[in-house]
Amino acid sequence: MTTTEARPSKLTPRGRATRERIIQAAAELIYEHGVQNTNNERIRLAAGVSGSQLTRHFPTKESLVRAVIAWRADTVIALHKIPQLGHLDTFASLRLWADSYIEREELCRGGCSYGSLAGEALKAAPSLRPDVADGFERWEDLFRAGLTAMRERGDLRPQADPDQLTHLLMAAFQGGMLLNQAADDVAPLRDALDAALAHVESFATHPVPHDDATGGEAP
Amino acid sequence: MTTTEARPSKLTPRGRATRERIIQAAAELIYEHGVQNTNNERIRLAAGVSGSQLTRHFPTKESLVRAVIAWRADTVIALHKIPQLGHLDTFASLRLWADSYIEREELCRGGCSYGSLAGEALKAAPSLRPDVADGFERWEDLFRAGLTAMRERGDLRPQADPDQLTHLLMAAFQGGMLLNQAADDVAPLRDALDAALAHVESFATHPVPHDDATGGEAP
Repeated sequence: MTTTEARPSKLTPRGRATRERIIQAAAELIYEHGVQNTNNERIRLAAGVSGSQLTRHFPTKESLVRAVIAWRADTVIALHKIPQLGHLDTFASLRLWADSYIEREELCRGGCSYGSLAGEALKAAPSLRPDVADGFERWEDLFRAGLTAMRERGDLRPQADPDQLTHLLMAAFQGGMLLNQAADDVAPLRDALDAALAHVESFATHPVPHDDATGGEAP
Repeated sequence: MTTTEARPSKLTPRGRATRERIIQAAAELIYEHGVQNTNNERIRLAAGVSGSQLTRHFPTKESLVRAVIAWRADTVIALHKIPQLGHLDTFASLRLWADSYIEREELCRGGCSYGSLAGEALKAAPSLRPDVADGFERWEDLFRAGLTAMRERGDLRPQADPDQLTHLLMAAFQGGMLLNQAADDVAPLRDALDAALAHVESFATHPVPHDDATGGEAP
């Protein structure tokens, strides 16, 4: 990839702030309306920048979408690093992660902020595929590390495959968010994540205690 | 919704054939390039129809996308009704269903033909949400019916919840297809479906035999 955009590392603090403001405005518009329905004019107005400022930072739409993909991935990954979730390396913290989406339906209305952008970007610009893949990989690394720690600690049996379980959790999450959005109902995500966590727990070396208020499946 | 498009039921056989040709051409272009990058001119050329023919059948882009959504759902549902898959009401037929995607990577390159369209349509036109939901529901009905039959027959324990297991299978499939597309690798879909099927099998009343050539997970 060669673009002529201003390198973020060479920007002044003020230039970096402007760049960040453009990315955030674009990310919000894209989440609401999709990539194709988000034009320069809308972004410019939302970010409060001039056309020439926009072009200097992002000479092409592709360069802007690329930056939005990385920003969305950074944002979703940061949400997984809050202290409450620990290192996603206990059954309780995985349950808490799932509940943080299931119990906040408003988070699900527009689909996964990263996944819905990923689907559209993959369709619109095949050249963005490596960027989309990078975001998913960095996100999945958090689960892979947590599940690996659980296996090394002996919470999960040696047969547990952190790669496979990570793919299950991420696929159930992404697919569940899409089905939620279509059904306008949180049941698909809740069901998919409950079942995915039950599968992870099937590798537990000791019975996993379930708080009745949040965990477990209805009889 | 009110549209002025020609009612398919009132069309002559020739009119119906033209309508079908437009839908198919649009569906293929949309799968390849996305909804927003598929304009009337491209559809007209691919379908070999005039502008006025296109407009008579589909006065708005939304009416055409609505027809493509229904057509894609019909097409994917028909693929699930081939004799080899039975009624998706045995462990073997569910395994065969999963393998039919896992073993044909070329089917996964552009993502799920229905799911990728669904994601884009939900973003671009909220008014299409009920149409998207209807397609998923009709598709899920096949799994729900198969799993319900398995429970009634005693292949699955009474605790198995066909609704929950259906949501798991569909979410793992949709999410797995998206992750495949991003990674350009079939591992996420394979891992997610293997794990989802293992969870379904955890409700089996008798051990499920695995053909080494297709089923089971690596040790």
